[in-house]
Amino acid sequence: MLKENKKELESDVIQLVPQLTLDCVIFGFHDSSLKVLLLKWKGTEFYSLAGGTVRQSESLDKAAERVLMERTGLDKIFLRQFHTFGNVERYDREKIKKMLAHLIDPDLWYERAISVGYYALVDYMKVFPNPDALSDACEWWDLNEVPALLFDHEEILEKALHALRLELSFQPIGLNLLPEKFTMPDMMRMYEAILNKKIDPRNFQKKILKSGIVIKLNEVKRGVAHKSPFLYKFDPEKYEEVLREGGLFFI
Amino acid sequence: MLKENKKELESDVIQLVPQLTLDCVIFGFHDSSLKVLLLKWKGTEFYSLAGGTVRQSESLDKAAERVLMERTGLDKIFLRQFHTFGNVERYDREKIKKMLAHLIDPDLWYERAISVGYYALVDYMKVFPNPDALSDACEWWDLNEVPALLFDHEEILEKALHALRLELSFQPIGLNLLPEKFTMPDMMRMYEAILNKKIDPRNFQKKILKSGIVIKLNEVKRGVAHKSPFLYKFDPEKYEEVLREGGLFFI
Repeated sequence: MLKENKKELESDVIQLVPQLTLDCVIFGFHDSSLKVLLLKWKGTEFYSLAGGTVRQSESLDKAAERVLMERTGLDKIFLRQFHTFGNVERYDREKIKKMLAHLIDPDLWYERAISVGYYALVDYMKVFPNPDALSDACEWWDLNEVPALLFDHEEILEKALHALRLELSFQPIGLNLLPEKFTMPDMMRMYEAILNKKIDPRNFQKKILKSGIVIKLNEVKRGVAHKSPFLYKFDPEKYEEVLREGGLFFI
Repeated sequence: MLKENKKELESDVIQLVPQLTLDCVIFGFHDSSLKVLLLKWKGTEFYSLAGGTVRQSESLDKAAERVLMERTGLDKIFLRQFHTFGNVERYDREKIKKMLAHLIDPDLWYERAISVGYYALVDYMKVFPNPDALSDACEWWDLNEVPALLFDHEEILEKALHALRLELSFQPIGLNLLPEKFTMPDMMRMYEAILNKKIDPRNFQKKILKSGIVIKLNEVKRGVAHKSPFLYKFDPEKYEEVLREGGLFFI
């Protein structure tokens, strides 16, 4: 919907599913806190989540994978559809049209758009944030410091976080968020960052070990203040098995 | 997309969101088993879930409520969006076009349609099943006896059931499925029917009572074989509170 893309779109070079968009909430974990990737819109101080369109020839999942690849440079990452946003007036359209008139021709907006929400869990260190055609910057924000977001993206972020927290209570998580080798406190801090609450360490360790999703290595982490903690890695087979069958209960 | 409706649709009397449909998995509970409402397509032996379209002027939720009202005569029922089905080839379209050519002009099919899935929990006794314009019959089927379904509706039903089972493990359920007054065994049978497994009765009763979502009445159920069991009803305020905050764990 960029002005300069108008002709291209009209000529149906890229045929899109009408009135359907995608929004991707891209979470990363760093420094014991949860981050989210935001776009800063060209020539403005406005932020939004990463978004995209759906082509006639691609599935919703493929479209979400494409958007993620474009914004992060990563593929094969944990990606989950969580909700489709289908209110008629998802936000104040007239206001937004004016705010973005320098970028998007107000006549080109759909009567309404339905947006499919996905959330992704990525390794913060592996991401090369890449702005889209409508944005000047693509940046990580600490979840506790997220600025006001355009459209209904605050609601979408909120709902993604809710879905992630629920999912966390019955499915293994961390394969994409943690480094290959990690300590039990590292893993616990990830859970605490997502759930935004303190967890009892002994109970946590007991449950994780009982689930069988991690393997204790014959290595310890060096350079930490106290007793060197053991390193763990995920057991990919067991992880997949629990993922398929569910059954972790943490909260 | 009915042949006789072609003119009406073309004249934009009802302006629909293009390429977007809804599918509703309507569950009922009766005789200790879970039922699902199916449509039998006109002049065929083919069955499907209840479906519908989305108007430009209505939200997805409102569209789902409309479909449910049309098929069951009920409103204000438990209705939950669970997944949007967005594969390009959701089913063998050429085959289906031929199978339904007596009802739907093959030229009128969209290039593809994305379908938003909802599931509903209704009181079996209160439903008046009502076929739609494309079907001869609207009938309850026992979940264990469901016939082959058109389109990708077996996958949609499977996913709805999965979502319902997950939801059951952290949210209260039964307000729309059980009669106003019920016994603890009634409630347990509902959980067993949905989960399709046996539950330990004492553990179940303990958890339900601890959650506070039910109130024990000063009445017993008459006419049952053994000791007359006490009746319970839901505490609507506590039910809503747990629904908002989550936190039941049963499985």
